Formats: sequence, structure tokens, C-alpha cells
Amino acid sequence: MEKLKVGILGATGMVGQRYIALLENHPWFEVTLVAASPRSAGKKYSEATLGRWQMVTPIPTSVCDLIVKDANIVEDIASEVDFVFSAVELEKELIRELEMKYARNNTPVVSNCSAHRGTEDVPMLIPEINHSHLDIIQVQQENRKFTKGFVLVKPNCSLQSYITPMYALQQKGYKISKAIITTLQASSGAGHPGVPSLDLLDNIVPFIGGEEEKSENEPQKIFGTIKNGKIINDTSIKISAHCNRVPVVDGHTACVSLEFEDKDNKPSLDEIKKIWKEFSSVPQELDLPSAPRCAIIYNEEQNRPQPRKDRDNDKGMGVTVGRLRECNVFDVRFVGLSHNTIRGAAGGGILNAELLKAKGFL
Amino acid sequence: MEKLKVGILGATGMVGQRYIALLENHPWFEVTLVAASPRSAGKKYSEATLGRWQMVTPIPTSVCDLIVKDANIVEDIASEVDFVFSAVELEKELIRELEMKYARNNTPVVSNCSAHRGTEDVPMLIPEINHSHLDIIQVQQENRKFTKGFVLVKPNCSLQSYITPMYALQQKGYKISKAIITTLQASSGAGHPGVPSLDLLDNIVPFIGGEEEKSENEPQKIFGTIKNGKIINDTSIKISAHCNRVPVVDGHTACVSLEFEDKDNKPSLDEIKKIWKEFSSVPQELDLPSAPRCAIIYNEEQNRPQPRKDRDNDKGMGVTVGRLRECNVFDVRFVGLSHNTIRGAAGGGILNAELLKAKGFL
Amino acid sequence: MEKLKVGILGATGMVGQRYIALLENHPWFEVTLVAASPRSAGKKYSEATLGRWQMVTPIPTSVCDLIVKDANIVEDIASEVDFVFSAVELEKELIRELEMKYARNNTPVVSNCSAHRGTEDVPMLIPEINHSHLDIIQVQQENRKFTKGFVLVKPNCSLQSYITPMYALQQKGYKISKAIITTLQASSGAGHPGVPSLDLLDNIVPFIGGEEEKSENEPQKIFGTIKNGKIINDTSIKISAHCNRVPVVDGHTACVSLEFEDKDNKPSLDEIKKIWKEFSSVPQELDLPSAPRCAIIYNEEQNRPQPRKDRDNDKGMGVTVGRLRECNVFDVRFVGLSHNTIRGAAGGGILNAELLKAKGFL
Amino acid sequence: MEKLKVGILGATGMVGQRYIALLENHPWFEVTLVAASPRSAGKKYSEATLGRWQMVTPIPTSVCDLIVKDANIVEDIASEVDFVFSAVELEKELIRELEMKYARNNTPVVSNCSAHRGTEDVPMLIPEINHSHLDIIQVQQENRKFTKGFVLVKPNCSLQSYITPMYALQQKGYKISKAIITTLQASSGAGHPGVPSLDLLDNIVPFIGGEEEKSENEPQKIFGTIKNGKIINDTSIKISAHCNRVPVVDGHTACVSLEFEDKDNKPSLDEIKKIWKEFSSVPQELDLPSAPRCAIIYNEEQNRPQPRKDRDNDKGMGVTVGRLRECNVFDVRFVGLSHNTIRGAAGGGILNAELLKAKGFL
Repeated sequence: MEKLKVGILGATGMVGQRYIALLENHPWFEVTLVAASPRSAGKKYSEATLGRWQMVTPIPTSVCDLIVKDANIVEDIASEVDFVFSAVELEKELIRELEMKYARNNTPVVSNCSAHRGTEDVPMLIPEINHSHLDIIQVQQENRKFTKGFVLVKPNCSLQSYITPMYALQQKGYKISKAIITTLQASSGAGHPGVPSLDLLDNIVPFIGGEEEKSENEPQKIFGTIKNGKIINDTSIKISAHCNRVPVVDGHTACVSLEFEDKDNKPSLDEIKKIWKEFSSVPQELDLPSAPRCAIIYNEEQNRPQPRKDRDNDKGMGVTVGRLRECNVFDVRFVGLSHNTIRGAAGGGILNAELLKAKGFL
Repeated sequence: MEKLKVGILGATGMVGQRYIALLENHPWFEVTLVAASPRSAGKKYSEATLGRWQMVTPIPTSVCDLIVKDANIVEDIASEVDFVFSAVELEKELIRELEMKYARNNTPVVSNCSAHRGTEDVPMLIPEINHSHLDIIQVQQENRKFTKGFVLVKPNCSLQSYITPMYALQQKGYKISKAIITTLQASSGAGHPGVPSLDLLDNIVPFIGGEEEKSENEPQKIFGTIKNGKIINDTSIKISAHCNRVPVVDGHTACVSLEFEDKDNKPSLDEIKKIWKEFSSVPQELDLPSAPRCAIIYNEEQNRPQPRKDRDNDKGMGVTVGRLRECNVFDVRFVGLSHNTIRGAAGGGILNAELLKAKGFL
Repeated sequence: MEKLKVGILGATGMVGQRYIALLENHPWFEVTLVAASPRSAGKKYSEATLGRWQMVTPIPTSVCDLIVKDANIVEDIASEVDFVFSAVELEKELIRELEMKYARNNTPVVSNCSAHRGTEDVPMLIPEINHSHLDIIQVQQENRKFTKGFVLVKPNCSLQSYITPMYALQQKGYKISKAIITTLQASSGAGHPGVPSLDLLDNIVPFIGGEEEKSENEPQKIFGTIKNGKIINDTSIKISAHCNRVPVVDGHTACVSLEFEDKDNKPSLDEIKKIWKEFSSVPQELDLPSAPRCAIIYNEEQNRPQPRKDRDNDKGMGVTVGRLRECNVFDVRFVGLSHNTIRGAAGGGILNAELLKAKGFL
Repeated sequence: MEKLKVGILGATGMVGQRYIALLENHPWFEVTLVAASPRSAGKKYSEATLGRWQMVTPIPTSVCDLIVKDANIVEDIASEVDFVFSAVELEKELIRELEMKYARNNTPVVSNCSAHRGTEDVPMLIPEINHSHLDIIQVQQENRKFTKGFVLVKPNCSLQSYITPMYALQQKGYKISKAIITTLQASSGAGHPGVPSLDLLDNIVPFIGGEEEKSENEPQKIFGTIKNGKIINDTSIKISAHCNRVPVVDGHTACVSLEFEDKDNKPSLDEIKKIWKEFSSVPQELDLPSAPRCAIIYNEEQNRPQPRKDRDNDKGMGVTVGRLRECNVFDVRFVGLSHNTIRGAAGGGILNAELLKAKGFL
């Protein structure tokens, strides 16, 4: 099979770098174009990231010498690639326009940005959960008169640690009505330079701008259903999130308390573990290249999951869960963990693209 | 006024060290005796703690040359001091016996240990909250035929960040029915050597043995009432605690969501802030030497409290609160912080002793 | 005694903040004016530092409501204060001009900036060492036709951990010819935002721009002598510095190997310890308010000094030394430590001003 | 090729765990036996390490169910395996005896322990450097009447960051006479529990017991030559090491200043870089499975190497060097870095075994 040609928008930033690192040797996709701000445009990629490459593996040689393009000049890019991953860093309104412009130019956009997460005809995808939302793509194309292009986004990194475990229970009939969640989020979530070291040495910061709202609202869309050509949010689930930045490099942890809607039909702890351990979904069935073998990994040790020890499970694509126990106030509680820059960012974007490819959208 | 002579049981451990550091130049109390395990007994205090003194100020010169006594030989110690602070590290059952033996030997015990926290005739004191529980001391003395001695304990360090803010609201008539709390607890809470560095570099540990139970149960006793010679727990408040160890030296942070009992009479956010800012109690009224000027400090900045920046407020005795906001699931949520080895341990013990002294029990 | 009125230039930056925190309740100096960039000018100090105040004590109430002035408008400031502390953050050339302009306007400048460290008629002062360099002030005033004003600077923070111990030996006749030094420098040395957390979590950075040159060259000036109206550097001492940034909040550590010039007259280890322990100089003799009781503190424990445990010695003004032992290659080696934002920055500046006041220059 | 059967002595400790993780899927060796202290003996490996497994990959399934043997019962083990990796944690004298007992029982011992590093007929091997020391094995076998067994050790982890770069220069005729080195060593070097978190949060510890001596003396043996059936140390090189523990998980950094013996024939900086970049040795020539592609990686960026970003270069087996520059006191200086638990421990041991196998000793 010939590989699809991929462009990375925002290629010099941290998420862009992670895309490039993860796509080295990808069986289906090949990075043939890198684009960033006008400031970087015209330089070799290795020059544009000199002193700023944050990955622990070197820049892939196939990317080193690519000349960075200006991500705003859509015409130069759209014709060169089969689709783009978007990780541009601009004002939201500008991102919204830019991503739609790529779509209009026949270039599907698989985005990490939050700009279109609230757009009604844009799917916000976690392949294990709401793969059925791919149906909205056709609506989007019709609405906007796109021929081949479209925009698809992934949700925020903070919710990946708890939404799949929650979904697995709902899918088995245990609808969740309330969740109170505290996240302990890694520094890398803010990029580089991001959070100053003086704020995270011997310290935590109990606030991340905009993060609590995303953590609370985005699950409602992901759990939503398509009606009348729109994704209708599931507002029957109430989530309260406390988001903290902690001195951890990678890996977001979530402490979760859940209440089930049906007081008369609640799963036992053993049943929940069983559901999680057996949970498997479309990415696993299709054996997508980046799919974790187990979408949910349950760790039985009493003090796990821990970010440094569990974030790399299943190449950073697994969600690790532990400490399932009764909650004194709600029904059950647990700790979830996922790698925020792999599962929660570039890896999640790649898995989305793989599902799109497998389903014929790319 | 002549100072009271104080013995420190468990003087070589971290809490014992903190007592000694904080009591240097105390206006009412003077450390005249240090006691520890048989292994340390017979050595000068400075020798017994050689290479193990963890405080950032040097050992007070008045303590350096004290010969460490064996804390188990009550007779040698009881006659030498007016009262003892207990921070012994033994099995619970042994602590229970030992502390009562001191009491029986006419030596009041102001304890940091958890051993007697569940004992019905032993008060578990936070001076700003349940000072009325001092009344149980007389019952204890009658029950156990103590003449002058008694045992009084302080609660666990983990709950100091949220219990005073909760109490302040209840005291104004806003009874709390449910609380879901996630704590981010400092390394010093586990003492030295305590938590291995490999567990807290680029990592958090989402489990602390026994800590969630204490965080959930002890408030029920503190909020309890004396009936028929017993402290009866207030079981109408349900607390669920998720306790995490984070890479912070000192200062426990708590993310708290609260629900009020009375749906028709809930305080507004402004009212809550006003209650907290105006909160003052017996230690402030009596102007106890270690009392914080403000028992609750409300920080209006959006990303506070933070452990490194706020733990030392009011000499480590204040509780700093911030981020009060509506909760999507319960009524309100906030972040609380207190210094775990000052307010939450030795400083809290000293404040207890000051109240005891002011009230004539010492 | 009436207090001198002091202005802080660069008052909103981290060093400026530290000046303000340290000068609260200073017996001789009172902060009556704060100045910063045009961006901050016109705001109340508490507004100008909203969300950026990095100290662990609150803004002194006497400073909260001061209106920040524009540090570039010398005329408005010079007439209002007796002298200024300069911690402005501008290009070097602009700082050089600005500081001299204050001096020309009859306002002595006690500076933390590096701009004038190489200027031949500007003393670079460590009060314990080169107090005799105050004599150059008169020359400077004559050279530049200043009446009352002058500029005096302090050296870089990185060298405070080793230069006083070295000086103490030289003063006793043990001239040092060579030093190889590795520093482990705290994050706060780079200010806030400064070093990104991703660079200091589970990491060290073995490079700090310009820091090695300062660490090597500035001691030559401090050890220099005044000849023909100039400070002539002592180039007979060769220093090689490796400067590293490490995940520490405050406190620069230095690992030092020394060779003495005279092979036939080297001090024994015991003699060196004795020299250090007995070392006392002008600030101690004059009992300056910020002078450490012991300019050099020798810690006999085998694993000290350590930044978190020793940086606050003598209110952050002491230099703590330990691990003195033979060097396999040179003569002796040791570890030195000082608090970089107190002794190495604002505290050092204040001590300089105190010496100037005591000697009649202010 | 059938794989050699390997036993791991000290299999439950951190180095033992790392051996097991690294040997998963090794092309030549297969872990068929695990041995540890009597306390662990008789348990399944997964049970014996329950809650103590520190690797970020799970226990290989082929090892999970192995029953841990008592490492002291040589007879039970020697017959079962082709050779052993030794990472036992015992008193030195006991290790010396135990390792020789395995050798006497026809079982070659590839050791990580320091016990036999000073033994004259035991080679201390870095395959890139002193592969010629393998010749001493025959002497050892004759001396001690071993048939097939022998003991071979690897040097301490602290010196791996600088010894190969030094060797590469010496090999090209630039003999080094003096080196002053400061190491910044990772927490994992002390194992688990190892260094308490309170010692490495916002702190560094400028002392590691025994580490400076090893860092200074072991290179003399590695650079030594075989004469009269003994390895004679090269005492013409003088090394002074300052060893510090820093808050880094993995990766030892070294700041190195070097003086060359021949004042008239010193390499230029460019020449040194060229030598390092071109350096290749026996493991590369033999293409050993664990050999780094480049034994020395020179990173041209001005602030590298950094532990978190460079330790995993060449699967943790490369030595990364940077910041080569003139030294003010000696000739040149640089920063070196290697992964202490891979290159510096288990990975280095495995490379030793691979060389032994390739050379016919196993």
C-alpha cells in the first residue's frame, strides 16, 4: 500500500513535534510537509526547531531537511498532501477559519485544536467511544459544500483518563448521572516554555485556564447522539472537575467519584472490573496500527496507576485504571491515567486518522 | 510567669524535631526533656539526631545536650515535666497503653498520634472548632481514675485544609451533608526517610495507607457532641476522600466539593467568602501565642492557594483558601491548603497545649 | 534616627520583589518609591504585581498602594529618594546609561545589575572582602563630575558560594592560583517565568548563558587592587567554572577544587576549617543589620551543605561550607552554598547599602 | 542459534529488574532462572516483586511464574544455567566469596557488583575500551583452578559518562594526566527505596558514600595493562571527583576538565570532536546486539546533554557529550552523560556478556 502524504500544521510546537516523532515509520502515513508560523517558514525543519526540539528521540531524518511552509497559505499546502494534522497555535477564531479553509480545499483536517470542538457538525472523536459520530462528516460536507475535505477534532487531553472507563460502564447499561473529578495534570500539557519551573518545584498549581470547562463539557458531546444533522450533547451527565498542574513531565491522573442514574441497578466492583478488563472497541477490532491492545488496563496494585510508571502502557495509548472502591458519597471511585501528549494529543489524533482511513474517509 | 516544663516523646522523629524547633523561645513552654526509643536513649540529643536533623534551623542550644530518655520508662519522665507532647512511633496498641500510662502518672499528654483518636473519652481537638470537647477531659479522668493527667489528641494532618472552612459555614447555620475531597499531600507527611525519591520524581502516588479513612472519619468526631460522657460522632456528614502523595516538601492541598443539607437555604459565594474572612474563634480571642491572626485566609488570586507560596501564611498556622466557585454537581467547591507539619502536626499540638493552659488544664 | 528614603528600580521583577520583602521593617531604610517599566508605571504596586508576586510573605502594606513610577524618568525619582536599589531589566547599554544618570542626579545607585561590573571606577562589592574598594567612589565622582551620586554594584549570584571561603584563606596568606568549580544553580536565579518546568523536571541543564564568564572573571576584580584611580584585576588567579541549572528553588551550590600558589606553605585541612570558623570582617565588626553573624558557617556533617536545609542559615546571608577534603589533583576541595536571591542578590545589595551608610556614603 | 540460559542473581532488586526487562526478546540470551535472598526464595517472581517492580514495562510473561531460588545455594543454580548476571546485595566479602563459588562451579559470572573490581585477576570491562583485558580470564582460571567459570565485572555507573570520551582521546595519542570531574547523579543509582524524597525535592545532596573513590580509582584499572598475570593500574592519570545526587530519575551527568600530558601536542577542539564522532570500537565492529551504533554521540546544541532528553540515546547505551570548550585552568572541558541503569548497570553488563559470547568465553 502506498502511504498517504501527511502535512503537519503547527509542526514546530510541542504537539507538532510529537506527531513527527510518532509518525516515524508509521505503516500508513508519511510526513511529507511541515508548516508553521510565517516566522519559521522558509527554514529547514531542523533549523526551525534548533534548541527547541523537545522529544527524546532525534528528528527523523526524512523530516530534518523539509522546508517549513507557512501554514496560513493553504493553497500551497492543500495540493501537496492527502490530509493534515492540525496543531496550530493561533487565536481560536483564526483556527476555526483556517481549518475550514483547508477542508474547503479538499484537505481533510484531523485537529488537536479546541477551536471546533463546539461546532455542531464537527465530530469530536475518541475512536473507542463515539465512532458512530463519523456519520456527521457527510452532513458537514453537505452543509459547507465541501467535496472531499472535512474537519474532525479530538477532545482535550484532561478527560482521556476517565472518559473511556466511564463509557465502558455506560455501554453495559450503567448510565452515569454524576461525576466529581480531580485531575493532576502534567507539565507537558502546557507545552514549552509553558509552566515556569518556579511554579512546579516544590509546588502545585490548582488552576489551569479553561481546563475545567473542557473537562466538564466535552464528555457531553462525546456521549451525544446525532439528531437532525447535529450532534446533540448528553446533558444528563453532570461533571464537576478540579484541574491541577503537578510536577510531572507526562501523564494526567484523575481521581474520580461516580454516581449511577439507576439506584436499583448498580454494578458491583467485581462487575466493573470485569467490564473494564473485557472492554474492546472498534480500534481493537480493526487492529488499527496505533490502537492499544487493551483500551483499558486495570492495575490491581493498591498504589497504581502512577504517571511515570503507567503512562507508557501500550505505547502511551492505553488508559490505566486502578483503586476501584466504594465511594462514601457516590457509588464508586477510582483513579485513571493516560499519557497526555500521546493518547491525549498526537497519538489520539493519529488513531483518529487511522479510523478515518479504515472507514474510507481518507 | 514561669514556663511549664515540657517533655517530647518521640523527640528524634520528624514531628518531634518540629516540636523542638517550634518551641524554641516559646513564651509559655520550655523543652526540658526529650525521650525516644531505647536505641537513642542515653545519647545526647545532638548525637541521637546526627545526620537526621531535618529542620532548616539548627537544633536549639538548650536542647542539644539533653540526654535522650527512653520514652517507655514513664516513671523517669513523668516526675520531671509538667506535660508531654507525644509523637512516638510505635504500634498503635502500644501507643494507646503508653499514653494512658503517662496520664495515670499525672502527666497530661498532648498527642500527635492516631492511636487514641477513636477513643470515646479522648478529645480530638482543633481549637478553632471543638474547644467545647475539653469538657470530656473531666469525664476521662473520672472514668480512668486519673488525678491530674489526661490524654488529648489532634486529628490527622490531611483534614486541616478543609475542616475549618467547612466548620465556619456550619457554624453560621449552613449544615454540610456531603463532601467529595481530593488531597494532594506533601512528602513530609510521611516523615524521613518516608517516601522514596523514585516515587516522587516525575510522579505522584495516588494512595496513602489509612489516610482516606482518617480524612473521612475524623471530621465526624470533631463535629460531634458530648452526650452521656461520650463524644458522639456527627454521622450526618458524608465525606469521600481521595488521598494522593505529590512531589511537594510541605503543605497539603485539598480540592473540595460541598453539598449543603438545606436546599432552600444555601449561602451565596459572596456570603461564604464573608463568613471565611470574618471567621475568628477561641484561639484568636484568647490571643494564644501560636494562634494564626486569621484562622482562614481567603486568597482572591485565581491560581491560589499553592503549597510553596501559601503554606507559611501566619507562621504556618493559617489555613489558606481560594478558588471558591459553583460546583456543577454539588453546591460549591474550593481549594484549601495548610502546612502539614506545622498546623497539621507540631504547631497544631502546641496550639492545643496553649488552649489547655489558658483553660487551666495544664 | 530617621530612615533613609529608598527607591527600588525594577520593583516588579523578582529581585525587586525580594528587595521589598527584605526591607520590610528595616531599621535604616524605608521603601518610599517603586519604579519599573513604562508598562507598569501609573499602577498601584499591588496591581502591577497582581498574579506575579513571587515572595512567600505578602506585599508589605506600606508598599501595596505606592504608585509605580517609570524608572526611565530619572528627574521624577531622584529628588524623592536618598538612594536607589537598581534591579532594572533592560539592555546592558541602557542600564549603564540609566544608572549613571541617577548618579549624576545626586542619587547613589546600589545595583544588582551586571552592566557596570566591568567599569573600572565602579566598585563591585562584597562587604566582607573588598570594602577597601569603596575608595574608588571618590575617584568615580571626580572622573564623572558627580557631586553626591555614584554607582556601586554587587557581583553575580553564582560566585557567592565560593569567593568568601577563598578570600578567607588568601587573607591569611594562602594565595590561591587555580580553582575549578562546578555550580549547581537554583531556578530562581533566572527569575520568573525563567526556566520552563519541562527543563527542570527530571532534568538538569548544563548551561546558563554568560554565567561561566561572570563566575570566572568577577572574582579577579573583587580580589583586585586600586591603582592610579582604577581597580586593577588580580589575574594571577585562574578560575574555570561549569555552571548548571538544577531543580532547586533557591540556593546555589558550588563544588570547588583549589590549588595554592606556594607549594611550600599550604594550610592543613584543620587550619582551613579554623580560618573559616574564625573568619569575621567589617560587616560583622560594624554589626550591620543584615550582616550574618558568621560570614562562613562550616557544617561538619558529611553530606552538607544542602540547598534546602542550609540556604536560610543566618537569614539567608551566611555562606555554608562543608566536605573539606584533600583533592587528588589540586590541594583541597569543598562544597559551598549560598542563598542566591538573598545573599546573592537583594540581601547582598542591602548589605552593600548598609556598609555605605555606615561609612558615610549615604 | 539456541539461546544461552541465563540466571539473574539479585533478581528482585532494581538492577536485577532492569536485567530482566532488557533481556526480554534478547537474541542470544534467555532468562531461565531468577535468584535472590532466602526471603524471596520459593515465591513466584511476580509475587516476590509485588509492589516493588520499578520498570515501566511489565514483567515479561516468561519470567512472571519462575520460582525464585536462593542465590546462596550455588549448586542448585550452577547446573541449570550457562552463566549468571550478578547483582546481589550483600556485604562485599560475602559477594566476593559467592561469585567465586559460582565460577568454581563452572558458571561464568558477569557481575555488576563492586566486590571484585579491585581483584587483580578479574577484568573490569567496558567493551569499547579494555577488551584486551579479556586475556586475564585465562590467568584467573589457572590461578584459581577454574575449568570453565570465571568472574568478570563492570565498573561503577558514575564513570561511564566520561571514561569513554577520555579513552577515545588517549587512543589517538593524547594522554590525559589530570581530570577534575563533578558528577550530577540520578536517584535510581541508589536503587529503591534509596534516597528519601525529602532529600531530593527542592534539594541536592553533595555526597554519595564511596562514589568519589570509585570514580577516581576505577579508571586507573580500566586504562591499565596486563603484566605478569595481573592488571597493572595506570596511575599516571589523576582524577578528582565531586559526586552529587540530584533530583533526576535516570542519567548521570559529568562536568569534566582535562589536562593533557604532552604540552606540545594537544588536540584542538575540532580535532577532539572529530575523534569522538569517529570513535568506534569492538562492540560496533562486532555489531553486538546491545552495542550503541555510536559509542560517543556529540550534541552540538549549547545546552546539551541533558539527562531526560539524552539518556535514552541509542537505547540508553550511548554516551552523549557536549559543550566542548577551552578550560581556563586545564586544557579542555566538556559535559558527558550516560544512562546509569542501562549503560551504567544492566545494559553494560549485557554488553559485556555479548562480547564474552562473541569471543568464545560463553
